[in-house]
Amino acid sequence: MSVKNAMTIEFLRSAYGGESMAHMRYLIWGEIARKEGFPNIAKLFEAIAYAEWVHARNHFTVLNGNVADNSVMAGGVFGNKVTAENLIGAIIGEDFEVDQMYPVYLETAKFQGEKDAARSFTYALEAEKIHSKLFSKAQAAAKGGIDLELKAVLVCPVCGHTILNEAPDKCPVCGLAKEKYQKF
Amino acid sequence: MSVKNAMTIEFLRSAYGGESMAHMRYLIWGEIARKEGFPNIAKLFEAIAYAEWVHARNHFTVLNGNVADNSVMAGGVFGNKVTAENLIGAIIGEDFEVDQMYPVYLETAKFQGEKDAARSFTYALEAEKIHSKLFSKAQAAAKGGIDLELKAVLVCPVCGHTILNEAPDKCPVCGLAKEKYQKF
Ligand SMILES: [Fe+2]
Ligand SMILES: [Fe+2]
Ligand SMILES: [Fe+2]
Ligand SMILES: [Fe+2]
Ligand SMILES: [Fe+2]
Ligand SMILES: [Fe+2]
Repeated sequence: MSVKNAMTIEFLRSAYGGESMAHMRYLIWGEIARKEGFPNIAKLFEAIAYAEWVHARNHFTVLNGNVADNSVMAGGVFGNKVTAENLIGAIIGEDFEVDQMYPVYLETAKFQGEKDAARSFTYALEAEKIHSKLFSKAQAAAKGGIDLELKAVLVCPVCGHTILNEAPDKCPVCGLAKEKYQKF
Repeated sequence: MSVKNAMTIEFLRSAYGGESMAHMRYLIWGEIARKEGFPNIAKLFEAIAYAEWVHARNHFTVLNGNVADNSVMAGGVFGNKVTAENLIGAIIGEDFEVDQMYPVYLETAKFQGEKDAARSFTYALEAEKIHSKLFSKAQAAAKGGIDLELKAVLVCPVCGHTILNEAPDKCPVCGLAKEKYQKF
């Protein structure tokens, strides 16, 4: 995998920064949800944290240049409140990625002929659309004081595709086989 | 825990961004070390990734304001090479934190009377000094084609203090009891 153009490189680094921060805050918010008595919302946070780790790893892997230190500008949501409020922060972050960040990053990668970056941005964009909906369901439950109903959360380890209860026969985004999904 | 001053808040966010990115790249570089046949260096990367998670969680927890989206500027090391080179990147990142970033962040927190932020920055600074030395030992081994010698890596889950083989009776940085250390 490789990347050549400076603007696509900058966007990959920024996306890596955003995904890394999202991974960490979902783990933190997952711990809070567990303490508040929402084990299924905690599981959703942990599973989606794993999906963000997949996105970060994909972006990092496309950035296969020499080892060097860089300044990175990235979006991060902060705030450490009750679960119903933390979930609003999660939705804000996902929606920004879906509506603004990833469409522009993907358009840039296509415009600059950066196929590996375009694939990495597409994988993330498709997963974030689902994350936003799942967090919205969780928020509706949590604000009424009840936990989300689910048996399991499944995440594709190649693209981060996320689905409740059972994996599809093949990942609809990257084609990975059902049995390779990571189960939470 | 709380924080009031805008400059300390900005530095906590930046430190959270830097720790989050470090956590992720150490997990990625740990996977590479394992594939190259350096299981102990892989273990060191995983343990230190956990210490960076502790630092990120501490900074995030001090930032206990309302849930909101922010732009964050943070330092990140990129590059995805062989282990002997990745370790040079790890040392560059740790040394920047030890020599430049955390001393200034800590001085600012003290100057602004931000006790919780000062504690969080102190915990990180003390751990990064050790991380730099451990990665240097690992780099010396890896560039000669051999793995690091170690039985285990122990990390304090409160402050991220990191030590090889056996935990001290009490954490020298935060005072936590030996049996609470996380073992890798
Ligand atoms: Fe993501
Ligand atoms: Fe997401
Ligand atoms: Fe997939
Ligand atoms: Fe750290
Ligand atoms: Fe460190
Ligand atoms: Fe400690």
